[in-house]
Amino acid sequence: MALDKPKVVKADEIEPKPVEGATGTRIRVLISSSDAPTFAMRLFEMDPGGHIELHSHPWEHEIFVLRGRVRVRIGDQTIEAGPRTAIYIPPNVPHEYWCISEEKAEFICVIPNKPSA
Amino acid sequence: MALDKPKVVKADEIEPKPVEGATGTRIRVLISSSDAPTFAMRLFEMDPGGHIELHSHPWEHEIFVLRGRVRVRIGDQTIEAGPRTAIYIPPNVPHEYWCISEEKAEFICVIPNKPSA
Repeated sequence: MALDKPKVVKADEIEPKPVEGATGTRIRVLISSSDAPTFAMRLFEMDPGGHIELHSHPWEHEIFVLRGRVRVRIGDQTIEAGPRTAIYIPPNVPHEYWCISEEKAEFICVIPNKPSA
Repeated sequence: MALDKPKVVKADEIEPKPVEGATGTRIRVLISSSDAPTFAMRLFEMDPGGHIELHSHPWEHEIFVLRGRVRVRIGDQTIEAGPRTAIYIPPNVPHEYWCISEEKAEFICVIPNKPSA
């Protein structure tokens, strides 16, 4: 833990890792829960047709779409979002993602270090 | 407060507001401390030559650069960062920003709802 130490990291120098419970989806952890006291910043990339299965957990997501287009089920609503759209998914609300663009989709996803609900 | 309600917002539909203690710098609050339980997501834009004065506070920043190029003083180090670079600035470390590109710089900046140090 080095919470008092600045960190500067280029996303493209981090090896993307496959995401469990998903197809065609990879994650890069930019700022981890060991780097920072309150929340972690991750970068997701989804291939065209990529899918993250419906799941739920007692913490929220704050998302910012960088490229491509995603369909996101959030509870009983389903939205579509492209670049420069921010999405807040509350704790304990089931959510599911699909990449619906012909190009790869990418989004930042920030989560708290501890459950918030 | 509607922490249990999803939010979907396009950045460009939010009116940017001037940032105090800065020149040529505007902020859009994408997800506020009233929207979400743990942290707020904001989008900053800086004109070429824009400057955010040296300041310090007992909470951290997690930043992701979207476009342009910034110079950031973080304590006793100064770094330069372009698109797809993430920056963690710890609580209580003085920091200062300059836009050093010929185009506008933009970055996401996430902060906790409560001081973390």
